[in-house]
Amino acid sequence: MHQLSAYQLIAKKRSSKSINSAEINWLIDGIISKKIPDYQTSAFLMATYLNGMTKKETAQLTEAMMKSGTVLHFDSQEVVDKHSTGGVGDKTSFILAPIAAACGVKVPMVAGRGLGHTGGTVDKIESIPNLKTEMSLENFKKQLMDSGIVLIGPTSEIAPADKIIYGLRDVTATIESIPLITASILSKKLAEGTNALVMDIKIGSGSFMKTRKRAEQLGRSIISVSKHFHRKCCALITDMSQPLGQYVGNSLEMVESINTLKGEGPEDLTHLSLELAAYMVLFAKKAKNIKEARKKCEEALYSGKALEKFKELIKLQSGDASFIDNPELFVVAPLKTEVLSKKSGYIKSFETQEIGLRLVDLKGGRKTKEDKLDLSVGFIFHKKIGDKVKKGESLVTIYHQKNQQGLADEMKEDFVKNLIKISNKKVNKPKLIVNILK
Amino acid sequence: MHQLSAYQLIAKKRSSKSINSAEINWLIDGIISKKIPDYQTSAFLMATYLNGMTKKETAQLTEAMMKSGTVLHFDSQEVVDKHSTGGVGDKTSFILAPIAAACGVKVPMVAGRGLGHTGGTVDKIESIPNLKTEMSLENFKKQLMDSGIVLIGPTSEIAPADKIIYGLRDVTATIESIPLITASILSKKLAEGTNALVMDIKIGSGSFMKTRKRAEQLGRSIISVSKHFHRKCCALITDMSQPLGQYVGNSLEMVESINTLKGEGPEDLTHLSLELAAYMVLFAKKAKNIKEARKKCEEALYSGKALEKFKELIKLQSGDASFIDNPELFVVAPLKTEVLSKKSGYIKSFETQEIGLRLVDLKGGRKTKEDKLDLSVGFIFHKKIGDKVKKGESLVTIYHQKNQQGLADEMKEDFVKNLIKISNKKVNKPKLIVNILK
Repeated sequence: MHQLSAYQLIAKKRSSKSINSAEINWLIDGIISKKIPDYQTSAFLMATYLNGMTKKETAQLTEAMMKSGTVLHFDSQEVVDKHSTGGVGDKTSFILAPIAAACGVKVPMVAGRGLGHTGGTVDKIESIPNLKTEMSLENFKKQLMDSGIVLIGPTSEIAPADKIIYGLRDVTATIESIPLITASILSKKLAEGTNALVMDIKIGSGSFMKTRKRAEQLGRSIISVSKHFHRKCCALITDMSQPLGQYVGNSLEMVESINTLKGEGPEDLTHLSLELAAYMVLFAKKAKNIKEARKKCEEALYSGKALEKFKELIKLQSGDASFIDNPELFVVAPLKTEVLSKKSGYIKSFETQEIGLRLVDLKGGRKTKEDKLDLSVGFIFHKKIGDKVKKGESLVTIYHQKNQQGLADEMKEDFVKNLIKISNKKVNKPKLIVNILK
Repeated sequence: MHQLSAYQLIAKKRSSKSINSAEINWLIDGIISKKIPDYQTSAFLMATYLNGMTKKETAQLTEAMMKSGTVLHFDSQEVVDKHSTGGVGDKTSFILAPIAAACGVKVPMVAGRGLGHTGGTVDKIESIPNLKTEMSLENFKKQLMDSGIVLIGPTSEIAPADKIIYGLRDVTATIESIPLITASILSKKLAEGTNALVMDIKIGSGSFMKTRKRAEQLGRSIISVSKHFHRKCCALITDMSQPLGQYVGNSLEMVESINTLKGEGPEDLTHLSLELAAYMVLFAKKAKNIKEARKKCEEALYSGKALEKFKELIKLQSGDASFIDNPELFVVAPLKTEVLSKKSGYIKSFETQEIGLRLVDLKGGRKTKEDKLDLSVGFIFHKKIGDKVKKGESLVTIYHQKNQQGLADEMKEDFVKNLIKISNKKVNKPKLIVNILK
């Protein structure tokens, strides 16, 4: 074989030529072994961002990144996971995973931490004292097979190439590339051993994919590469033009998740969690069709079985399960500042990404990977798009620390001036599930 | 002013947006001070390669790079330089600079070393023993004003940003970008203080710009940015489909240059050197029109004044001037291998870039910046495109060391098989000066 060089691969991608699987494997090996310096990798990433990749290249990149670490295999078709592109108040994992597991699906969650305007599943669940999100992959497999539900944090054993590449993309403005996002998501999901994947791709002001067109392109790319690996996949295109549910902030989102598992959650969060879980149940062949799958999921939720499953997860991972029975145990910040509406009308829109960044300002989210979080701060939203509001009524409650009163007062102004828009005319509620790609 | 970030500038260029002069200055400062890491710079360079820059951005980049080091200023409009994009056997500097200087032009040469298939002016002239190509910029200015001719090698005082950026472009496949080439060339030329510039842009098998279209785009870009800085500029688009002159290799090229200064050079080299010098003379207002400038240059050459000027340069820079009177003093490799034509016909074409790389194989050129050169090796070509050749006649003489006989024998085969093509039919000689852009 002729000798490969990083220069050559950059030049090819720069000139919109395809690179073959041997070249992609060589590239990922070089990135992992540090033989290829970061400045060459970032030039390659920018060329890929601008010139794209074919479906074949994307699949080969996914495979090479997947194989950069441990790859788990499960023969069972019951192993099904969900992935969301992220948003504000997105806590469906805590609800749909126990629902699906209660229906016999095995849900192998390798979850992330929050960065920027979106929260992280691992950060949120760590508001339950003593809960462990680190374990060996052996124990991960065992718990999955035994209990059907397991949740761990990012591990260097799973797709380590993705960590390096994502780190570079994050500082070189190359995140929003459909082939690179596809390879990043699927390399990790395939390595964790999932045999089918339900994607939740968000659109709207709080999402990464700003348009429905881009979201659907991403969905089709992920479905196509999943099929290449003989994995079932579907993608729900869902609304993120406002926070999902009412609670935003780590502890607060756990409280809302538990409420929802008790059948007392907000309509949007409940409906989306059930719908995502139903596709997981269908993929795991625990139902004959989506109608039956929906019914099973509703039963699992409203019978309390899903809540029991969640409690089992917490116990298995050494968490304090009394928090599930008594959500008032969650530590919530001591001060509340109410954001009162300055006029009457109908809620028109939310600057959802900005709202996510306000949580970062309260230290409830991260600016940089090293930031420590205050899990107790956050917001409770009392109104959704289309809701009627009266002057003087509370739109949002800000939960904050004593030394954050000044900040909270500034935020209060910001919310009514910039972050929540109110119209004199009636406003339609946005459709929650915009499209389903299969 | 809002805070700048490398991320922001990369994102702008990635999205084909313009960046302003404050942003460009900030970028170049960050590159020089190492505050911006290489991986961000290389992502920016790739985005620029693929999305381009406006004329205004290119001018601002040129200015920021120029100002990254010392900038010399000369009030005299007589200060005029030439720049060539490089090729094989390109030794016009040694001929045109003394011609122009003999006509009263002041020629401030800051020249480069060879890399890859093209040779370097500094390497070539160093085949004259004891010649110094390092001096302070004070002495550089003084010699220029006193003698009208000076030649130094690359210095970190002149446009240091270019060195860093060029180094990254070289390994990230972003060399061939018209705005980046423009800024690289002009930042150095403007910093050396030239008040007008004659560009020699090569096209054909031995050049960097493979097509006439690209060469003319580059020419127009350089002229436009030069005008922005109120510098006169013209660009000759010239043929590099075969080596320029007959001699290729460091010492050998000095011998041919001296022969040419004696009025005994090959036609193409003599003609091109005179024509480039004439534009320099015109820009320096030493002639009323190009016709008069050509006449003055011919007088300077054929009267021996240019040769005297060259000898003056050598003496001023401590070189052994006896080599000018006795070019047989130049050390030439001891063995000659003749490449004999295997058929009769007409010379059709040269693989000129490949020929440049064969010189590298003989150690007469550099693969990497650290390589040491053997100045004595090289080639003498006995035929040009369109020349008639008989079977058994010598096409090329290879000058090599004793331990290179095997290599020379391989090269011999390569020359007749691949590097020089012969046609049965008559072949037209290529036009040497294809176009002149002003």
